[in-house]
Amino acid sequence: MTGSVWSDEQIARAALARLLEPLDNVGLALVAAAGPVEALQIATGATTCGPQVHRAFLEVLDASGHRVRTDVLIQAIARWQTRVGALAPLRDLETVRRFGGTLLIPESDWWPKALADLQLEEPMCLWVRGDNPAPIPSQERVVAVVGSRDSTSYGLEVTGDLAAGLVARGYTVVSGGAYGIDARAHRGALKAAREDHPLPTLSVLACGIDRYYPAGNEDLLREVAREGLLVSEVPPGSSPTRYRFLQRNRIIAALSSVTVVVEARWRSGALSTAHHAAGLGRSVGAVPGSVHSVNSAGCHRLLREGSAICVTDAAEVAELTGPLLAELEEKREDKPALHDGLVVEDLLLLDALPVRSSSTVDKLATVAGLSVPGVLAGLGRLETDGLAQRTDDGGWRKRSR
Amino acid sequence: MTGSVWSDEQIARAALARLLEPLDNVGLALVAAAGPVEALQIATGATTCGPQVHRAFLEVLDASGHRVRTDVLIQAIARWQTRVGALAPLRDLETVRRFGGTLLIPESDWWPKALADLQLEEPMCLWVRGDNPAPIPSQERVVAVVGSRDSTSYGLEVTGDLAAGLVARGYTVVSGGAYGIDARAHRGALKAAREDHPLPTLSVLACGIDRYYPAGNEDLLREVAREGLLVSEVPPGSSPTRYRFLQRNRIIAALSSVTVVVEARWRSGALSTAHHAAGLGRSVGAVPGSVHSVNSAGCHRLLREGSAICVTDAAEVAELTGPLLAELEEKREDKPALHDGLVVEDLLLLDALPVRSSSTVDKLATVAGLSVPGVLAGLGRLETDGLAQRTDDGGWRKRSR
Repeated sequence: MTGSVWSDEQIARAALARLLEPLDNVGLALVAAAGPVEALQIATGATTCGPQVHRAFLEVLDASGHRVRTDVLIQAIARWQTRVGALAPLRDLETVRRFGGTLLIPESDWWPKALADLQLEEPMCLWVRGDNPAPIPSQERVVAVVGSRDSTSYGLEVTGDLAAGLVARGYTVVSGGAYGIDARAHRGALKAAREDHPLPTLSVLACGIDRYYPAGNEDLLREVAREGLLVSEVPPGSSPTRYRFLQRNRIIAALSSVTVVVEARWRSGALSTAHHAAGLGRSVGAVPGSVHSVNSAGCHRLLREGSAICVTDAAEVAELTGPLLAELEEKREDKPALHDGLVVEDLLLLDALPVRSSSTVDKLATVAGLSVPGVLAGLGRLETDGLAQRTDDGGWRKRSR
Repeated sequence: MTGSVWSDEQIARAALARLLEPLDNVGLALVAAAGPVEALQIATGATTCGPQVHRAFLEVLDASGHRVRTDVLIQAIARWQTRVGALAPLRDLETVRRFGGTLLIPESDWWPKALADLQLEEPMCLWVRGDNPAPIPSQERVVAVVGSRDSTSYGLEVTGDLAAGLVARGYTVVSGGAYGIDARAHRGALKAAREDHPLPTLSVLACGIDRYYPAGNEDLLREVAREGLLVSEVPPGSSPTRYRFLQRNRIIAALSSVTVVVEARWRSGALSTAHHAAGLGRSVGAVPGSVHSVNSAGCHRLLREGSAICVTDAAEVAELTGPLLAELEEKREDKPALHDGLVVEDLLLLDALPVRSSSTVDKLATVAGLSVPGVLAGLGRLETDGLAQRTDDGGWRKRSR
């Protein structure tokens, strides 16, 4: 394989990505034990698995909590055999290069370190595509904005605002390229992107990065490829299956420091992304909505179960990305009310002061339940604060403002 | 004071309620140290405070975290002096009796035990009024439903549904009798009340129970007095001051096992009730709403800060009233999805099965990435589950449903 622009590891992982479905734990454990090049040889039957590698392989599975029979590898090799004939890693790599893309692997510099938190479930590789390829930022700068395909105008509006607000703050918005909330998240991010933003948005797809799925989002996905990145763990040409959709969600969650669910029904794929995020110790935000909207029921479920934090705008999402990197957000307008800081006696006195007529000190003492000296002292303080004023007849009233 | 239908403690507390504003800690500590009858004597200057009582009095203040000067009582007595001339406890008691009411005091059987959690801030007494007086139920059966005076149609609708749902489950709905959310909570409770419900709703007022405040709610408050209870810690004739409103909120919170805030602005009195409830270790529920609604901003603030649990209907509120008494609510519809419980291999296989055409076992093995025996076993399981079917040409496809 010398002479190729691709490293041996890239070629091996490209082949393994076609041989194995995402999250094939047996295959992933084999790679962890033997490295990608030897693992491919073993998986395709080109070589047999030595006892040392086999022991390491079983240990990896055991350490990640998988109780397996000792013949699990033999079974798996038989299972994989049906796909060996279709392997053509160099062709796949050329395909992705033709699209202006490349193959990221854990051994490469640009590999998003955040994915290591997936441990054994770390993807075999990531096929990425973008006209102006930029590295995927570290998780502190990445926020996932996800939600249902069927969405309300409310959900779409909030999504657009969130995505735009996050991009304006320098974050990269990750989503899944689906209809509804996902699509609006990408669109909002693209719309808000400025020249100097390295990567406003990226789509993690459940199909190959050479495909536009769903078809109605073709234009959008083309624009994401132009201005951002399309990313997938499955090789070019792969079709999006339900299984791949579910597995794809773990990558969205792992790339991001915060996963925000804008709208989701009581049962929704977007909740799976949220649960992945929570499982990884990432923050989860949920946008509240009407209790009458079935499209918010999943968000309210997350809030009620305590799996998510209530977020209502981009500033609140940014706060969740971490204390170190979250900018100093302007505090929400929280002006002290007129009467903040008054002692109880002065509050009583203020309540007792008439607005139009005037009152005497003695009468104020009775109404407010204060002593005469207490009233005099309080009136002095309230006058200083501009809350009380003397009247022409020598009495007191509230200061008109 | 013999011959009166009122006990000495009732008469003394009635007088003290007029002498002291709510939450006058010095007065409350004096009552805790000396009992109401002697405390009244001391407070009015009819007798002096002996050294033993004075020591106990200072200890009560100290124990409740109040750092005071030793002359605090002398100062207070001077302060109270302005109201001594106006004391007429028997007249006040007669007034409340004319309205079909009575005076509850901590010494009486019907005193709501839950108020003891307020410790030194426990009310001096409660003036109550109701045409069909029923005891205030223990806190497990009482839920506060509160919110802003300015409310949206959304907030009003949710409030009405919540109150009705709670009363239908046998709870008593407590609120503050104000415009907006409070009023709708009372109305929803009254509307849902059945003959056999002892107490659908009660209003804790910031003014005397002989007054209708706000005036626009007079009809409503009359109906609450007919079908439920009006309750106040301030004596008949008292006007509602801002100070009394704020203090009143602690009673609403203390009577209830759960305080639900339906709508509240970022700064709102309803939040003070929620904070009182949280401070007492009671549950707080917040109803979510549109992130664009300023009337929901306070609820979202509570959710975000973790002070409240997200509630969207009466069943979810009922769950918060405690594990012992919350009925077994019908679980929200949560049918297993078609594909729940399938192993990963079967999910892959299901994804690989065509819907209209048919596929061979070998092709399925390649597409799904499974071995041929694995496909055969999986097809058997899927056929049993009604998810796969044989085609006339000997192949397989998804079962049409």
